[in-house]
Amino acid sequence: MKKLVQQVEAILEEALPRAQVVPEILHESMRYSTLGGGKRLRALLVMAACEAVGGNIQDTHGLVAAIEMVHAYSLIHDDLPAMDNDDLRRGKPTNHIVFGEAIAILAGDALLTEAFAELARMPKKYRVSYEATVRVIGELAQGAGSQGMVGGQVVDISGQNRGLDEQTLLYIHDHKTGALFTAALRGGAILGGASDEQLEKITRYAESFGLAFQITDDILDEVGQTEQLGKAVGTDQARGKQTYPRLYGLEKSREMAASCVEDCHVALDSFPNTAGLLRDLATFIIQRDH
Amino acid sequence: MKKLVQQVEAILEEALPRAQVVPEILHESMRYSTLGGGKRLRALLVMAACEAVGGNIQDTHGLVAAIEMVHAYSLIHDDLPAMDNDDLRRGKPTNHIVFGEAIAILAGDALLTEAFAELARMPKKYRVSYEATVRVIGELAQGAGSQGMVGGQVVDISGQNRGLDEQTLLYIHDHKTGALFTAALRGGAILGGASDEQLEKITRYAESFGLAFQITDDILDEVGQTEQLGKAVGTDQARGKQTYPRLYGLEKSREMAASCVEDCHVALDSFPNTAGLLRDLATFIIQRDH
Repeated sequence: MKKLVQQVEAILEEALPRAQVVPEILHESMRYSTLGGGKRLRALLVMAACEAVGGNIQDTHGLVAAIEMVHAYSLIHDDLPAMDNDDLRRGKPTNHIVFGEAIAILAGDALLTEAFAELARMPKKYRVSYEATVRVIGELAQGAGSQGMVGGQVVDISGQNRGLDEQTLLYIHDHKTGALFTAALRGGAILGGASDEQLEKITRYAESFGLAFQITDDILDEVGQTEQLGKAVGTDQARGKQTYPRLYGLEKSREMAASCVEDCHVALDSFPNTAGLLRDLATFIIQRDH
Repeated sequence: MKKLVQQVEAILEEALPRAQVVPEILHESMRYSTLGGGKRLRALLVMAACEAVGGNIQDTHGLVAAIEMVHAYSLIHDDLPAMDNDDLRRGKPTNHIVFGEAIAILAGDALLTEAFAELARMPKKYRVSYEATVRVIGELAQGAGSQGMVGGQVVDISGQNRGLDEQTLLYIHDHKTGALFTAALRGGAILGGASDEQLEKITRYAESFGLAFQITDDILDEVGQTEQLGKAVGTDQARGKQTYPRLYGLEKSREMAASCVEDCHVALDSFPNTAGLLRDLATFIIQRDH
């Protein structure tokens, strides 16, 4: 898995515009928040799903870059003063602290745009079919858009300090993080040439994976160490945000996460030999300490 | 032309998520800044270029919606307090004044994303080929990205209050507004089935058109009436922004704009019967008073 993470870094390094290209400050800002950090979970999910359905991981490189650019853009915008107002991310000052608010907004915009530019290059650069390219663009746009990731963020910031409600909590997690996981997994499977049946299994895995991830994130925010997380702990609670531990308690939350990982494994029953990485990722996600 | 503008409005109305869809406030905000206003210049360029190369305007509806969504997103983000800090746009309060800064940022993000979602729907919705769809997505992403529109905005805000310099002025206009015009025109031509030669002519038209537009915009900012523009006049000057009248004077600027329109017509010489709309748009652009 470590080797794959290094590969993701190399793919991103190559896909992003150089820092010497005009306007330099914009490209520096884009690279600052995209390179050199993160678990690369979304990229790994892309590659793992492609492998699970019997595809060639080489064919996913465009989506690997694009999904990490979209993730990076979402973090830059989430951290802005008008949003979560965070100064620290992965142990480094956030983008707007380093480059100022205007450049941070524009770097996010540019990363989102560059993600689609990179996907549109897939037919020439990686010999992906035009049809698969369009399908993957549709998956990413849906997962990242107003009824996906951005929709989740809107409900999240609107719901702060308004107490807890299970349905809203589910909506937020399902959209804010889950939708992009789903786009990564379904996109990777499409690039691997998945059948409709395989795609449906991957989608079921995606749903359980997203929930397991988010419950664990909430638990870590409650009990983790600032050092390990690279961001301030207990911030969700301080902001009155909805979390699983606040709604169900720590123990029940841990059980729920474990049950989701079970569901992930069940969804993979029909991929006995090719889904090793997907299985490992599901297990990893609730065992991580940051 | 008025009829086409109404058609654009109907296409956009249909393409945007309904205001009743969750999260409602986000979709209201997206619709507030996209519907019911504007010259629809970029959409008209899409349709005109398609017609010029002998294509069917019906095939452009996806790009017509997408290009106006991208334009609307760019205005929302440009108006933000961290950017131009404008309260008024087309005679209405700007998005962040009505919906708050966080929602305005997210509505911009969602519109940009939705533009690509709509393009990815073109094969099924409008029977556009997968190859043409991918090419158009590439054009839009390039025109809107870090080396296109966003790049121009970065240089524009970085150059404020730093005096005038012709090369920088050209870079800003070429990128901030020109790149999206080029994407509209080339995208429309591709959807119309343009040959390489036709596409090159359209690209030359695009360059001259962009310059004529921007010079005229600068002139209007210098001499226009607040009422007609629907925004505060003289704001460019107040901010120390680069403008053509400040660099060359009003009269010379008017001559330059007229000469660009000449170039537009020359580029269309080989489209004698089909380029009526493109010709009209070039003439319109320097005669408008807002």
